[in-house]
Amino acid sequence: MYGYTAPIRDMRFVMREIVDIEGLSQLPGCDAATPDTVDAILEEAGKLAGGVIAPLNRTGDQTGSTIENGVVRTPEGWRDAYRQFVDGGWNSVPFEPEFGGQGLPMAVASACAEMWNSANMAWGLCPLLTIGAVEALTAHGSDAQKQTYLEKLISGDWTGTMCLTEPQAGSDLALLRSKAVRRDDGSYAITGTKIFITYGEHDLTDNIIHLVLARTPDAPAGVKGISLFIVPKFLVNADGSLGQRNDLRCASLEHKLGIHGSPTAVMQFGDNDGATGFLIGEENRGLQYMFTMMNNARLNVGIQGYAIAERAYQQALAYAQDRRQGRAPGEEGAAPLIHHPDVRRNLMLMKSQTEAMRALGLYTAAMIDRSRHAPEAEDRRIAQRRVEVLIPIVKGWSTDLGFELASTGVQIHGGMGYIEETGAAQHMRDARICLIYEGTNGIQAMDLVGRKLSMDQGTSIKALVAEIKAVAETMGAARGDDAQVIAAALAEAAAAADDATDWLIAQSGNDAQAVLSGATAYLRLMGTVCGGWMLALSAGAALRGLEEGADDASFLEAKLVTARFYAEQVLPQAAGLGRSVKAGSASMMALSPEQFAA
Amino acid sequence: MYGYTAPIRDMRFVMREIVDIEGLSQLPGCDAATPDTVDAILEEAGKLAGGVIAPLNRTGDQTGSTIENGVVRTPEGWRDAYRQFVDGGWNSVPFEPEFGGQGLPMAVASACAEMWNSANMAWGLCPLLTIGAVEALTAHGSDAQKQTYLEKLISGDWTGTMCLTEPQAGSDLALLRSKAVRRDDGSYAITGTKIFITYGEHDLTDNIIHLVLARTPDAPAGVKGISLFIVPKFLVNADGSLGQRNDLRCASLEHKLGIHGSPTAVMQFGDNDGATGFLIGEENRGLQYMFTMMNNARLNVGIQGYAIAERAYQQALAYAQDRRQGRAPGEEGAAPLIHHPDVRRNLMLMKSQTEAMRALGLYTAAMIDRSRHAPEAEDRRIAQRRVEVLIPIVKGWSTDLGFELASTGVQIHGGMGYIEETGAAQHMRDARICLIYEGTNGIQAMDLVGRKLSMDQGTSIKALVAEIKAVAETMGAARGDDAQVIAAALAEAAAAADDATDWLIAQSGNDAQAVLSGATAYLRLMGTVCGGWMLALSAGAALRGLEEGADDASFLEAKLVTARFYAEQVLPQAAGLGRSVKAGSASMMALSPEQFAA
Repeated sequence: MYGYTAPIRDMRFVMREIVDIEGLSQLPGCDAATPDTVDAILEEAGKLAGGVIAPLNRTGDQTGSTIENGVVRTPEGWRDAYRQFVDGGWNSVPFEPEFGGQGLPMAVASACAEMWNSANMAWGLCPLLTIGAVEALTAHGSDAQKQTYLEKLISGDWTGTMCLTEPQAGSDLALLRSKAVRRDDGSYAITGTKIFITYGEHDLTDNIIHLVLARTPDAPAGVKGISLFIVPKFLVNADGSLGQRNDLRCASLEHKLGIHGSPTAVMQFGDNDGATGFLIGEENRGLQYMFTMMNNARLNVGIQGYAIAERAYQQALAYAQDRRQGRAPGEEGAAPLIHHPDVRRNLMLMKSQTEAMRALGLYTAAMIDRSRHAPEAEDRRIAQRRVEVLIPIVKGWSTDLGFELASTGVQIHGGMGYIEETGAAQHMRDARICLIYEGTNGIQAMDLVGRKLSMDQGTSIKALVAEIKAVAETMGAARGDDAQVIAAALAEAAAAADDATDWLIAQSGNDAQAVLSGATAYLRLMGTVCGGWMLALSAGAALRGLEEGADDASFLEAKLVTARFYAEQVLPQAAGLGRSVKAGSASMMALSPEQFAA
Repeated sequence: MYGYTAPIRDMRFVMREIVDIEGLSQLPGCDAATPDTVDAILEEAGKLAGGVIAPLNRTGDQTGSTIENGVVRTPEGWRDAYRQFVDGGWNSVPFEPEFGGQGLPMAVASACAEMWNSANMAWGLCPLLTIGAVEALTAHGSDAQKQTYLEKLISGDWTGTMCLTEPQAGSDLALLRSKAVRRDDGSYAITGTKIFITYGEHDLTDNIIHLVLARTPDAPAGVKGISLFIVPKFLVNADGSLGQRNDLRCASLEHKLGIHGSPTAVMQFGDNDGATGFLIGEENRGLQYMFTMMNNARLNVGIQGYAIAERAYQQALAYAQDRRQGRAPGEEGAAPLIHHPDVRRNLMLMKSQTEAMRALGLYTAAMIDRSRHAPEAEDRRIAQRRVEVLIPIVKGWSTDLGFELASTGVQIHGGMGYIEETGAAQHMRDARICLIYEGTNGIQAMDLVGRKLSMDQGTSIKALVAEIKAVAETMGAARGDDAQVIAAALAEAAAAADDATDWLIAQSGNDAQAVLSGATAYLRLMGTVCGGWMLALSAGAALRGLEEGADDASFLEAKLVTARFYAEQVLPQAAGLGRSVKAGSASMMALSPEQFAA
């Protein structure tokens, strides 16, 4: 077992060179985020994550959250850690000051989110869910609702949930059956069963605010008949104190592959007279309201993807430096694993791709900030479009890779990786859920080739690829072998992305199956290319720093090597992915269901 | 939870079209394997696997093997299943008749092995280990040793283990410390601790024959000072009855990510006067003896890789046919998952790659048969060379893919995939060990680019690639769009393999690091191309069958579509892999250990 040290040096580098935190802090509403403040925040967050939250990761996996007579207990130590988190003001980092938020940019909040999730993903899920509730209430709640709930949710004294899934309705919310019947007092009686409810019940706080999707009796069928309700565990009195226990309960907890510490609840609403719920906004617009929190939630799951890759990398690196086994070329005696080329390869795959994902995650978060705070409407609009395009990529690509790299971490440990006490396997088990929740990665891919490509006839995606091509060109003008290799690989990969994008645009409208058949390969292609873009920008900054005689030369040289490795070992996949996109649907859809059976 | 149905139709197809079972059965020593007999064997094995062994898979995972006061109990039902397996003569399938074996070809035994491991990999490991003990004794044991142990091991009344690993000696057996001191009676006193011993202790049989690597006091350092010993749990009397309990014990069982039913033991030898061991062959040649069973053991682990992929595929397919969720292009209402292009894509990835792996596994097994039984020495030599090349590919590629595809199976289940009761996650957990044991996949890759490429200056690998190119050419002369697509993709992928092979040959001897840096990408490239080869052969046979009006037209059409899918969605990766091989070691080896830390 090894601990966790927040990768603050790399985060600072990304903040400076990719996010332009200095420029960001000059936007109205982002002025709290001066570079000095951000530095201090990262330092302090790193201490809490590494010193308090990370040590609870392994024991949380072992004991899990438990249920007894409907009472859920989180693992030992989790309440204390959550209390420190709330008392330190960490829950309020990304929120508006009006109800107690610290008004810091998403870019800063996202760096912190990486730390909580690297330290302990099962624990980090709890504040992640609360963010969604705050966003929904901020955007669509009435003034009275905001007064009642926001301050406590923002402080973290209460937590939030998202109650969407039902046994028959997972990815397909049109199939929702939970009911909401309006009462005379304007509240609604909610009945139904919700499954997979993250932190649906727990002992970290004394109230839980459920956001529940349900149908009113006369609602239209399908997704246009879904409304969104606030359903608190304890009703809140007019003076803000806790009132009556609501008619809802946790029926059971799921036995999951990973994130054992996170209670995944089956929630039963309205066993008796119906749980009391309060409509958010208007009836039948619930799905639309949910979508306003989707970007943030999906970004956060993408962050979990690379957070777990970072944790797995740190563990594998420590093991590879400690463990001696086998002879390395040109050495006597048993060498540390890290001297072996194939182990190196695995470590470099982890390092390069984790850094690429982090840079893209923070870039995307900063783009959300710009979409909200840029002074010019046109700049906000362009930033918003960029965000729309990047969200499915960050979610799908970072979580696919997060799992792959956690598995790479297991592999570096050899036989020890398969033993649970080592901890490497837990990271892999935990990482696996990120490919599924907040919309499976297949759904992310469909979103990318469907909504995101068609929203403006591909203009935004084409603009993104053009920007990446321009970065490759700039890199090509830089000196040195590394720059040339990076530039050539990125240019070729971006050309494959451009080509695949054109092909998808040409198909859309006349061959939906062809477009959907290429969706996953296209998302991987775009993620791979965006990763190359981020590392090329990093390499460019490193080259400038080295020319200027920066004092962190060793770190900057590593950035350059890392970008070159990615260019040599990862970017060459792009061309093949592009070809898979363009292969269309013929062989994919040809078999009858009977022909699938052996 | 879904059951398991042995894919007998596909196995028969491979036996007929790829293995040439008819030709094989005409070799001396393979004459028991007439096509009719093989058909009957596959049917009966399928019944035992599906009806008896498969239903124990889930409960075995849940309860695991347990230890109490040194006594290990396998999960409920495992003893009975093992008894049926032994009584049915299944353990003796691949062995020579002299000591009770059935003398069936490896190709047939390998098809059966797939079934046992699809049904229940943790259970299937037990007979798999016994095979290694039989092979070592058959090849290197004295006549007396054969008389004492072989009959019981071949029948399965006793099981065997391989005791190699020690805490400080995993991949690197040079670091072995277990001791063997010769006694006056010619036996040896064995002392030491062995870890990760699969079925090191269990309740399936009344004796366990451990094969133990240890050093004699005056042995040279390193791998040249390792000897191999028979160390039975119970010493065997002259009349074959069980005698004294040997001085060895199971100290504990590991807590593993998967294969919970399989007891992975820490074995303590010689707590008192030393465990009694019997030298196999000569002192200091133990590692060499171990290598004689390596091919078979690695082939069997490769088989486990696709066995688990097959099981995961069957489960995911059943779920995708049952579960309705979301609208599919051109349909009304919620469609079965299998109608969605992205789910199709995942199912086709599972189906096509599993069939490719199975074909290559059975082809390789048949090549082992030819290396033993072909009448001409030159044919045996060439077959042996082909086996040497293919073993690391089958082991590394099939287990990498087996895990990836088990994870794909989880993904098809969406949220349900993450719930342990569903069973999909177990397949993924079980599959993960195959990338590690019997030599990690990194070691397989090093074996391929090191020993296997250099044993004959690349002649055997070049011959393999040339044969694949010829298959692509033949395919290119066939009629129809499918054949053309398959031929072009295979030709291009084979060219990438050829090119990478030439590059590695050119580097070997002057740049070991460059060769080792490209090892894993090269293994994946070769596996990908070999898979395309197998599916092209299958497509060719399907085309012939369809032209001749065969009565299984639907199955043959599916073969053709499956090969085309692989050509469009998998083979395009080859070119990029080739480029990664040729990138060399510069960016991989440039960082200092300190530069890896964030």
